[in-house]
Amino acid sequence: MLIRALTLFRRAVPASRFCPCATGRTQQYCTSAKNISIRDALTSLDTGSNIRIRGWVRSVRSQKNHLFLHVSDGSSLQPLQVIANSDLNIRGLTFGCAVDITGSLEKSPSQKQKVELQAQRVEVVGECDPVDFPFKIKERHSLEYIRQFPHLRCRTNSFGSLLRIRSEAAAAIHSYFRDNGFVQIHTPIITSNDCEGAGELFQVEPSGNEHSSDKENPHFFSVPAYLTVSGQLHLEVMAGAFPAVYTFGPTFRAENSQSRRHLAEFYMAEAEISFIESLEDLMKVMEDLFKTSTEHLLSQCAEDMGLFHKFISPGQRKYDLTFISYTEAIDILSRNSEQFTFKTEWGCDLQTEHEKFLVKHCGNVPVFVTDYPYDLKPFYARDNQDQPRHTAAAVDLLVPGVGELCGGSLREERLELLKTRLARAGLEDTYAWYLQLRQFGSVPHGGFGMGFERYLQCVLGVKNIKDTIPFARSSRSCLL
Amino acid sequence: MLIRALTLFRRAVPASRFCPCATGRTQQYCTSAKNISIRDALTSLDTGSNIRIRGWVRSVRSQKNHLFLHVSDGSSLQPLQVIANSDLNIRGLTFGCAVDITGSLEKSPSQKQKVELQAQRVEVVGECDPVDFPFKIKERHSLEYIRQFPHLRCRTNSFGSLLRIRSEAAAAIHSYFRDNGFVQIHTPIITSNDCEGAGELFQVEPSGNEHSSDKENPHFFSVPAYLTVSGQLHLEVMAGAFPAVYTFGPTFRAENSQSRRHLAEFYMAEAEISFIESLEDLMKVMEDLFKTSTEHLLSQCAEDMGLFHKFISPGQRKYDLTFISYTEAIDILSRNSEQFTFKTEWGCDLQTEHEKFLVKHCGNVPVFVTDYPYDLKPFYARDNQDQPRHTAAAVDLLVPGVGELCGGSLREERLELLKTRLARAGLEDTYAWYLQLRQFGSVPHGGFGMGFERYLQCVLGVKNIKDTIPFARSSRSCLL
Repeated sequence: MLIRALTLFRRAVPASRFCPCATGRTQQYCTSAKNISIRDALTSLDTGSNIRIRGWVRSVRSQKNHLFLHVSDGSSLQPLQVIANSDLNIRGLTFGCAVDITGSLEKSPSQKQKVELQAQRVEVVGECDPVDFPFKIKERHSLEYIRQFPHLRCRTNSFGSLLRIRSEAAAAIHSYFRDNGFVQIHTPIITSNDCEGAGELFQVEPSGNEHSSDKENPHFFSVPAYLTVSGQLHLEVMAGAFPAVYTFGPTFRAENSQSRRHLAEFYMAEAEISFIESLEDLMKVMEDLFKTSTEHLLSQCAEDMGLFHKFISPGQRKYDLTFISYTEAIDILSRNSEQFTFKTEWGCDLQTEHEKFLVKHCGNVPVFVTDYPYDLKPFYARDNQDQPRHTAAAVDLLVPGVGELCGGSLREERLELLKTRLARAGLEDTYAWYLQLRQFGSVPHGGFGMGFERYLQCVLGVKNIKDTIPFARSSRSCLL
Repeated sequence: MLIRALTLFRRAVPASRFCPCATGRTQQYCTSAKNISIRDALTSLDTGSNIRIRGWVRSVRSQKNHLFLHVSDGSSLQPLQVIANSDLNIRGLTFGCAVDITGSLEKSPSQKQKVELQAQRVEVVGECDPVDFPFKIKERHSLEYIRQFPHLRCRTNSFGSLLRIRSEAAAAIHSYFRDNGFVQIHTPIITSNDCEGAGELFQVEPSGNEHSSDKENPHFFSVPAYLTVSGQLHLEVMAGAFPAVYTFGPTFRAENSQSRRHLAEFYMAEAEISFIESLEDLMKVMEDLFKTSTEHLLSQCAEDMGLFHKFISPGQRKYDLTFISYTEAIDILSRNSEQFTFKTEWGCDLQTEHEKFLVKHCGNVPVFVTDYPYDLKPFYARDNQDQPRHTAAAVDLLVPGVGELCGGSLREERLELLKTRLARAGLEDTYAWYLQLRQFGSVPHGGFGMGFERYLQCVLGVKNIKDTIPFARSSRSCLL
């Protein structure tokens, strides 16, 4: 119905510079050339067909009678080779410019590609001054260099690949959870919980609210409101009504850190599973998520993944996960305590140096560390009620090159135990609603969170977390 | 490998109250009962099989020798009927409690369900005091009532259905874009753009930053930082390197509104398409997204959708979209100007009352309104260069019961026109980076945003937007 209507509605077609193909009112005005993505062109078997491509020039090479272009439209890493007569070498045809080209798709005589486009028409739709443009033809710019240009870096091969991989990884995570019966919950970004009293929170008020006319209650939400550091408690709400839930969205830390592993704004996939009663069952989900997503990337983004593994770093390719208990980990570390700055006594938290050592010690594979000291873990971690070394049913997943990738635990579902612990911390009133979850139809449950950018660092071997996110935010830096 | 390892790792199994099935270390300890979701049980053809279900009691009915339960685990709206001997009617078996039940799945003699569970074992894993629990057996609580209990309302039928539908709708949106070659971009939540100088922004600083020790520059990010109101400009960055991109995430407005159509935190699906040159092509994508998602919901969530259409409101079911130009809209409104509070002259913005009238006038179907006055639209909207009524290539989609669902436009890709407009507004420096997008390989492009909660309001017929989101945030309200 819309199509019929659109025909009535259609405006006059502006005159074209070269041929009717160039108008953007595509197929109906040009019966011969078919709009096609470069990805599709590269795998097309339909040689001899008349096609139209649009994209950006990645290289220009002029020979006596011929012009060779490489054109990319972002649908794939590999560009399409375009061959034209030298008389089509028009002004503005430079590295970085946007072009609109029609021609005939032909079998390529070269080994480098299966097909090439023999151009009949080349139009420059957007010029690009090679002097001002910060990226130069044939140069392989470092990730550090391109990071300075957050509005342009997607035009480089490496960051283009990163973004395609990131998009596929996000899809893989959603698919994994959906295929396994998880309901997606958009946990709130703005929250009045100050989660675990963890400090390092961003607070939120309307811009200009320092001049609030309401001196009695200056807060927009009536209460102080923060950016979420985790959707866990909200997912636990949902674990009281669904078999399994997940969230996958941004979380925040106001850390004054310039570490290559920290961002002020980063993504987490978090899951909560009802009726789960063992850490083993939880680890099975964590392992499945990691393996399924990574296998998806290796099969669906082989070309883009290859670029990282070839030019950046090998990334994670061994999938035999292993595990040790915290207590075993401390034993291992203690035997090598002279190598560490931080203490390796039972009861101390594992530091980055410890995590790295443990991963190496286990053969450079991902390592689950289980059953941490009860006193190291937040109030919601389930009490293992063991003695004399009192532990909680919590687990971290450490991975090569990154350290902590996931953290999870069984949650304390027993009302009395939880009440006692919250009361001891003076949090009984703050978490009255959370206690009610245990008062009304409480079930054993557990969950975990996986840092998405760290996951990408791990599988791609990217050193700096800032190179895994479209627009990085960290202390002193919020470009665009 | 993990499975083998887990066997070594497994702890002692605690004694069970009823039978080994109740331990949670499921299948390997109970060879007879298979863990199964209620959704799967309801459609199972495997009658006579021994199964184990876990969920929450939705109704309890005790007859002379028999006990009838309805148990739901959140995997479906329909509960499973459980029949047990009266001697299994143990303490705590009340509405809202959590249960763990094993028994034999049998063909049901009743017309109401295909199968029922004849229980051999019933365990209450989490009690629920019916006096304190705010929801009562057999009562249909209003959406307004349950909204008071954000930590418990997911346990009602209506909100449980809403959350399953919302999850499927989100999946449908992701699928639509992915199937059509869009790359997903996580546009930033925290941004230093104050997008369009649009006011009503939330500002972000670390909690306690009013005591910042750095008086020279008190800002965590060195510059004032806000919560995003739209990912559009960041998507436009990506439109310089990909054929099509989208984002689907939270956006924010610090509006002091208690409207049934506004939230302080809401979700938007936004898309940006490169090499697009007409509003028609853009509307085609908007229409496809709307139709594909809605068809997905009607087929995948028939039961849950049915609950809304039966008890809440019919929702949107007519899909014949139509469209008019802004100028035509003004003509229609002017002929009925006595019905409106706000002016209906050419050049005035359309108000909610106008939008409602137009939707009704067009037969209560979604209506595209195109080509708004140039001066009403932000700097990025593409100049139609028409006279005397100067318009921009912008489009809104109005839908019954909601009003504006989507807004989009072609973007001004011509450097000189954009420069002039920004200079006139004194924004040339602020948007220097945005101008560079047009300086280096600019392409015609356009995009739109769709309010996700408004979409749910539209298809479900939900009056208040607060009932379409897991945790609603609005002025004076940020529960949990």
